[in-house]
Amino acid sequence: MRARKQKVKTYLDKLRQRINIIIHGVNTPMGKIFDIALLFIILLSVLLVLLESVQNLDDQYHDILVLAEWVITIFFTIEYILRIVSTRKPLKYMLSFYGIIDLISIMPMYLSFFIPSTKILSVVRALRLLRLFRILNLGNFTGQAAELKLAINASRTAITVFVYFIIIISILLGAVMYVVEPVESGFTSIPTSIYWCIVTLTTVGYGDIAPVTALGKGIASLIMIMGYGIIAVPTGIVTAQVANGKNRRKVYAPNCPTCKAVPSSDDAHFCHNCGTKLGAILK
Amino acid sequence: MRARKQKVKTYLDKLRQRINIIIHGVNTPMGKIFDIALLFIILLSVLLVLLESVQNLDDQYHDILVLAEWVITIFFTIEYILRIVSTRKPLKYMLSFYGIIDLISIMPMYLSFFIPSTKILSVVRALRLLRLFRILNLGNFTGQAAELKLAINASRTAITVFVYFIIIISILLGAVMYVVEPVESGFTSIPTSIYWCIVTLTTVGYGDIAPVTALGKGIASLIMIMGYGIIAVPTGIVTAQVANGKNRRKVYAPNCPTCKAVPSSDDAHFCHNCGTKLGAILK
Amino acid sequence: MRARKQKVKTYLDKLRQRINIIIHGVNTPMGKIFDIALLFIILLSVLLVLLESVQNLDDQYHDILVLAEWVITIFFTIEYILRIVSTRKPLKYMLSFYGIIDLISIMPMYLSFFIPSTKILSVVRALRLLRLFRILNLGNFTGQAAELKLAINASRTAITVFVYFIIIISILLGAVMYVVEPVESGFTSIPTSIYWCIVTLTTVGYGDIAPVTALGKGIASLIMIMGYGIIAVPTGIVTAQVANGKNRRKVYAPNCPTCKAVPSSDDAHFCHNCGTKLGAILK
Amino acid sequence: MRARKQKVKTYLDKLRQRINIIIHGVNTPMGKIFDIALLFIILLSVLLVLLESVQNLDDQYHDILVLAEWVITIFFTIEYILRIVSTRKPLKYMLSFYGIIDLISIMPMYLSFFIPSTKILSVVRALRLLRLFRILNLGNFTGQAAELKLAINASRTAITVFVYFIIIISILLGAVMYVVEPVESGFTSIPTSIYWCIVTLTTVGYGDIAPVTALGKGIASLIMIMGYGIIAVPTGIVTAQVANGKNRRKVYAPNCPTCKAVPSSDDAHFCHNCGTKLGAILK
Repeated sequence: MRARKQKVKTYLDKLRQRINIIIHGVNTPMGKIFDIALLFIILLSVLLVLLESVQNLDDQYHDILVLAEWVITIFFTIEYILRIVSTRKPLKYMLSFYGIIDLISIMPMYLSFFIPSTKILSVVRALRLLRLFRILNLGNFTGQAAELKLAINASRTAITVFVYFIIIISILLGAVMYVVEPVESGFTSIPTSIYWCIVTLTTVGYGDIAPVTALGKGIASLIMIMGYGIIAVPTGIVTAQVANGKNRRKVYAPNCPTCKAVPSSDDAHFCHNCGTKLGAILK
Repeated sequence: MRARKQKVKTYLDKLRQRINIIIHGVNTPMGKIFDIALLFIILLSVLLVLLESVQNLDDQYHDILVLAEWVITIFFTIEYILRIVSTRKPLKYMLSFYGIIDLISIMPMYLSFFIPSTKILSVVRALRLLRLFRILNLGNFTGQAAELKLAINASRTAITVFVYFIIIISILLGAVMYVVEPVESGFTSIPTSIYWCIVTLTTVGYGDIAPVTALGKGIASLIMIMGYGIIAVPTGIVTAQVANGKNRRKVYAPNCPTCKAVPSSDDAHFCHNCGTKLGAILK
Repeated sequence: MRARKQKVKTYLDKLRQRINIIIHGVNTPMGKIFDIALLFIILLSVLLVLLESVQNLDDQYHDILVLAEWVITIFFTIEYILRIVSTRKPLKYMLSFYGIIDLISIMPMYLSFFIPSTKILSVVRALRLLRLFRILNLGNFTGQAAELKLAINASRTAITVFVYFIIIISILLGAVMYVVEPVESGFTSIPTSIYWCIVTLTTVGYGDIAPVTALGKGIASLIMIMGYGIIAVPTGIVTAQVANGKNRRKVYAPNCPTCKAVPSSDDAHFCHNCGTKLGAILK
Repeated sequence: MRARKQKVKTYLDKLRQRINIIIHGVNTPMGKIFDIALLFIILLSVLLVLLESVQNLDDQYHDILVLAEWVITIFFTIEYILRIVSTRKPLKYMLSFYGIIDLISIMPMYLSFFIPSTKILSVVRALRLLRLFRILNLGNFTGQAAELKLAINASRTAITVFVYFIIIISILLGAVMYVVEPVESGFTSIPTSIYWCIVTLTTVGYGDIAPVTALGKGIASLIMIMGYGIIAVPTGIVTAQVANGKNRRKVYAPNCPTCKAVPSSDDAHFCHNCGTKLGAILK
């Protein structure tokens, strides 16, 4: 009896290991096939959510779409359970970014029994598409993403300051346009005018609200030319950061810890000024 | 009697000092709490001005909004008086940027007794939000803002020249479009055509005015492609400036004062050409 | 008899050679004249396709346009046959980019006997305009195009990652706007909302769909400001690549193959650290 | 008699010299005052042309506007004659850029006697505003403009190639959209579709023509995202050029004429490799 139990346990352990290799593995052939198949099913499931929202299609193929939705939900549920079962640290997976996304991807369908309007939440599945990066070009992407992230991080403060200025400018100019333009031209309140100002400064320009008076058009022209110059600033900041990032991969010797002199070359071993030994850092 | 007067004066002096620490201080705990509380009230007061301009809300909650506006105005008035009283140089504060903004922020409500339409002026409060920078990330922001300012200052002449060219081009192309397009398509006058031209060159494109004739569409296409190329120029200028700014923080040795030779390295102490001692400058 | 045949063959060979020089040659005077004449006919033929699609013109000048179309098609057919006949490797030409374009440029007119709607395919002729580069500024263009291609290639991964992120963001934000906005404002389905989101993020902003609720306008404002910051990233990447490309033409010494030290100068012949001889590479 | 003639001639010569100083001079006080006064009159005259095109204003103030136009035209005529008379090389002035602009600025009013519709030509006066640069910040501007011109010149080939590609892409995509979209949505002909494509690629987006079918919206989305990436390329090219321009002002030692080695430093006097004397060039 005990021997049998042991045997079952060993069998289960092996099964878990095998599932683990298939689901979590990337470099194994089975793991790769599973990942690509999963990616297609995710794409299909996202497409399904999009199509369900189209009235015509939903009217005609309602039953088929609901059936497909259930098939996918059940498939994802099984996958979610297998992921939890097969890993040795189920909680770590469940609380990870992908673990939460995976859960939210299947919840809406079950919740829709109780609260019908939650079905839209299944669009969160789109985030599962991020797995693509892990699957397709692992090494290359990691480097690229890291570089992008570095550039964005480095520019963050400058861009925050910038966005903040834009919002304050939009409030002031929005109020001015609200006073200048008649209500009929769409500038019905200051918040609406601020919305128009952002639409204009970012050069989106829907045209649902547009100045009609001569003075309003004049101010709008100034705002646009200003926006034209303003758009250059965040671009410049990010560009400089990306360009700097490209140069940063080299090893730079830090300033001399003793006399603060800039080293004579990027890979100097001793300070050329006072002779202190220099350590190398990767900026 | 005199002793009592002296005591009162000492007490008042201490009070002033205490208010000073709370209102003007940044690094003290009380000063920080006051600053953050003030920021929330400013945000609230700006929101209030925005909401008052929405017809629906003003109709429904007119009394509440007016009451809130009075409460905030009185609070700001007290704050303004305390700021004047607590500082040793009241005139310096009153004539400073923030001093004037603080005054304009409370004036409209009192003026609205006499001239009702001045209420909109209270939107100037939005400028008080600039204090955020002083409160939140002091050190970091100062550097970022200084860098931005440097880049914008350095690019100013180039951008001014550029904007000037755009205006002249817009006048000429506006006149051309006015001649080419019929009045029905919205090109009712040359100023309107210039407005359209700026809307197009900056890629805002409202669509309230758009060419309808074949020739007009052809010219518009040329303007757009031109604008496409033109937008690159100010961006390029600012980017080059920002990128230069990043490199400028290093210490650069100036050219040799004797023979004008470029130093052999950025931290050379003597000219490699004629032996003159070099001073270091921070460009 | 045999001698005559030989003579005819020699004559044909000479003719083929001559045609070859005229059609395929670039640097010969006859080849240049032919190329420029061909370019004008291609331009004319493209113009013809465009004009045929204009209802007014087609109604009035239908017969003339059809005639011109036939004249050009027959001319292009003869040219196509001559190109095949005159070259020694007809299959290589036929399967080349230009060979396929040349065939597709003449097919539609013959196909239009059987399938009338294929006529539009003749717009592919526009691709024949690419020959312009070969004809006009050969040397200069090759360098420029190569540089552009290098910059685009180098930025490809970063931009792909970026576009992918934009699509995922658009799906999520599209779903949010679909929930927030009423159907009347144009957000009729999630795919339509995604379309709107792309129109907004790229700052195109048609205005055929635009938010009408306060919440929708707020979210739209956030999307626009985000897009404003986002547009900076691909620009920054390409700029950094182009700028790097400009600097890359110099000869750079590689890192030392023995001790991996960065060379002391760009044209060092020996490693300054361990004395290993360095080879020069063109990055 | 002869003496008197001589005296008159001397007087005229002095007068001419004086006029010359006032009209052509920039650094003399009188010349500066004249230039600034002239600039205001030019501004006024441009404003006049703009206002005349506004129907309302022209109806109300027709007589005043015509009078003002005549006063300015006569003033400009006198100025033009004085410019010719006062200079020693009248033909050189008359055939210069400003000479031709000055003539075109006064012609329309006189021509309007014979051909009424030529009055619009007087908008060319806007070009006279370019004198502003000469008047206001001479030294600074010359440098800035030269730098801009250098950057634009250097980027010209790359941008030309680029614009050419955009046009070919627009023709192909325009034809595709013409086939995909129904006539009712505004895609009435291929030229119109091309116009729409340019409006979209440049992110102007009027919205007068917009896709209505699902397929059309899909293709439009692809075009927009493509345009998003494309806009980065000319920006990158110009930026790299401007940034390079900034670095170019330094004196660079050329590669060694004997052994082609890159000099050891930017101001080396002798080749560090073979000892050849190096000349300095300003790139």
